[in-house]
Amino acid sequence: MENINLFQLMPKIAGMKIGTSAAEIKYQKRKDLALFTFAKGTSIAGVYTKSSIVSETINWTRKVGKKGKARALIVNSGNANCFTGYEGKLSIYQITEELAIQLGCKPDEIAVASTGVIGEKLPFKKIINKIPECLSQDDTIEDAAKAIMTTDTKPKFICKYTHIGGVPITINVIAKGSGMAAPNMATILSFLFTDAKIPADILQELLSKSLKNSFNAITIDNDTSTNDMLLAFATGKAKAHKKITSAKDPALKDFAASIQNILTEIAKKLVTDAEGAQKFVEINVTGAKSAKSAEIIAKSIANSPLVKTAINGCDPNWGRIIMAVGKSLEPVVQDKLKLKIGDQLIVDNGEINPDYNEENSTKPYMQNKNISIFVDIGFPQKNNNKATIWTSDLSKEYIEINADYRS
Amino acid sequence: MENINLFQLMPKIAGMKIGTSAAEIKYQKRKDLALFTFAKGTSIAGVYTKSSIVSETINWTRKVGKKGKARALIVNSGNANCFTGYEGKLSIYQITEELAIQLGCKPDEIAVASTGVIGEKLPFKKIINKIPECLSQDDTIEDAAKAIMTTDTKPKFICKYTHIGGVPITINVIAKGSGMAAPNMATILSFLFTDAKIPADILQELLSKSLKNSFNAITIDNDTSTNDMLLAFATGKAKAHKKITSAKDPALKDFAASIQNILTEIAKKLVTDAEGAQKFVEINVTGAKSAKSAEIIAKSIANSPLVKTAINGCDPNWGRIIMAVGKSLEPVVQDKLKLKIGDQLIVDNGEINPDYNEENSTKPYMQNKNISIFVDIGFPQKNNNKATIWTSDLSKEYIEINADYRS
Repeated sequence: MENINLFQLMPKIAGMKIGTSAAEIKYQKRKDLALFTFAKGTSIAGVYTKSSIVSETINWTRKVGKKGKARALIVNSGNANCFTGYEGKLSIYQITEELAIQLGCKPDEIAVASTGVIGEKLPFKKIINKIPECLSQDDTIEDAAKAIMTTDTKPKFICKYTHIGGVPITINVIAKGSGMAAPNMATILSFLFTDAKIPADILQELLSKSLKNSFNAITIDNDTSTNDMLLAFATGKAKAHKKITSAKDPALKDFAASIQNILTEIAKKLVTDAEGAQKFVEINVTGAKSAKSAEIIAKSIANSPLVKTAINGCDPNWGRIIMAVGKSLEPVVQDKLKLKIGDQLIVDNGEINPDYNEENSTKPYMQNKNISIFVDIGFPQKNNNKATIWTSDLSKEYIEINADYRS
Repeated sequence: MENINLFQLMPKIAGMKIGTSAAEIKYQKRKDLALFTFAKGTSIAGVYTKSSIVSETINWTRKVGKKGKARALIVNSGNANCFTGYEGKLSIYQITEELAIQLGCKPDEIAVASTGVIGEKLPFKKIINKIPECLSQDDTIEDAAKAIMTTDTKPKFICKYTHIGGVPITINVIAKGSGMAAPNMATILSFLFTDAKIPADILQELLSKSLKNSFNAITIDNDTSTNDMLLAFATGKAKAHKKITSAKDPALKDFAASIQNILTEIAKKLVTDAEGAQKFVEINVTGAKSAKSAEIIAKSIANSPLVKTAINGCDPNWGRIIMAVGKSLEPVVQDKLKLKIGDQLIVDNGEINPDYNEENSTKPYMQNKNISIFVDIGFPQKNNNKATIWTSDLSKEYIEINADYRS
């Protein structure tokens, strides 16, 4: 398994073609439309936002995902096609109908994703008009990563090589999202592509089990999007490899690990590029009452505006971390509680460590770009009563971006 | 019932004396200690933070509250006496022991409250040294409101006149808190004083039932303090009134309404003076699946950083309100959903109102200091499937205050 610098080498996924275009849906003078077309037989798997209000794209693509086969994915930025009522649905019918004619497939083999402003009608004709241009292009994964950006400052994409039973396999992933980012069983927009030949149900299994330690382990502002969607496509156009009939096939071991790693990496990239973020923060909670409790506590710390602003101000204000543990309302063994910032043991057995010297240890540490926080809740350590969450700080720039810009 | 401008008139509570002092616990050159002494027979009632990690003051004062009688309340700002282990407990023993000697009462008749930095040892000797000075003063409720401030920019106090069966009664309340403010069954620090003669259990009943529409209806940053505490004291030193033996006594009607009103008013004052706040926001949710569901949805809107920053930027970004409704994960009848900002109907039956003209209606409206948001979730309206929550916007100043200042 190897990370590839795409500026040197952009490995294409066999069986997939990318076309991007500037449809001027909202943004001017930049690409805002990405069309991915796939070889016949391509499998699709997906996970979607759990929000009680969802974009029409979620309703549509969930059905495509359930059928397990896809011939195309069309994604626009600048408009979420959410809360657009019957016209929102209709615009998807029109786009997929038109694209199906051009590709010689059925509309329900076309996945659709949108991201941008909620509540505005999708100017679907602008999208339809650009379909021929998209189909004529042969763009890179980086072009696609750029086209789906909203407030992101950088395109986010990763390429990896792995293998199945010794046969080389390529995996690409792209993602967008830098605010409204507290995924719940899915996230943001993220699309993974591979040339492996994996049946849809097995692809779904691999995707779903990789969530916990990737997109579901990040939070930027505890706001969950109406349009969150993570899709995986497997074209089956790599060199012939062992036929896969079970997610537990030992030949899949490295491939499955690569899926996990690439999703974890891209999820962390979202946090690094979070709106206004100056810090990347890892929160480790151990010794909680249960795995779920550990996750709730870690997210309570990660989502606390007071913890996030202290980190932004380089203040090792550990009292606020204690506050955030407490406000989770989860069980705590207070007289066994331990707290570390970086390597510094600050609280031990529920009291401040008498050797703790803030001036010489955590004060300089807080100047780092990467901050790590560790809390042990005090219950006996078990295999899984722990959680890791990644987040960003909360800065004046976050306010600036979101007060002044309608995203 | 009448509001009194305290700059003209500071009605004292018969049976209560106030003394304040500058003990230099953390702040220099300002008062940071308030001592309230009460006549024999004064009733006490209280509600406390639900955080799983609490200040030693909560553990102590909860016990005093349970016994129902109090002779004094001592409050310091600048230090929360939280996460201070055995020494934290010990410092309360020392303070109450000393004060009990001076007052000729028992230590467990003395309520204690602290607010300020978490995790630092309380310099209790500084407090003990100032007890004689406090006892020699005869300060006003405004002096006390000032002494308990931390990042508050204004002292918060209200005085009201009411009556029990025609006998005049005075009620005073003070509160502090401008961040770490998402009370959960209690709040911040707030103390209510009255000269009425009310048994502790009835005082407790009146206090508890006033919470829902006062402190439990506000949120500033969804961070709950380890030290939240609301206490009520009734000295019984007003002119003799009808003996009260039940909270349902019709003679208590106006008094109970006054308690509710004064707590609602002081809770709103906390929001108005929230850290960095430029707006006061009222969120009304109706037609939810249940009362609890309405509250969860209203708080999801109130705590959304993206909604709060949009309000700060005077942007009527109603799509973010929809997002916040959805991320609550509560049931929604999407095709019946209604949304208003101010008087403007923006969404009706789940779609944008065709007559909605943002430029001429909500854009100018968002310039106001008081913003009102209304969402109907779409279930049939019942008596109680609704909630009102008050909150503030999220500004650069909030970040500034909390990144640069250890409160």
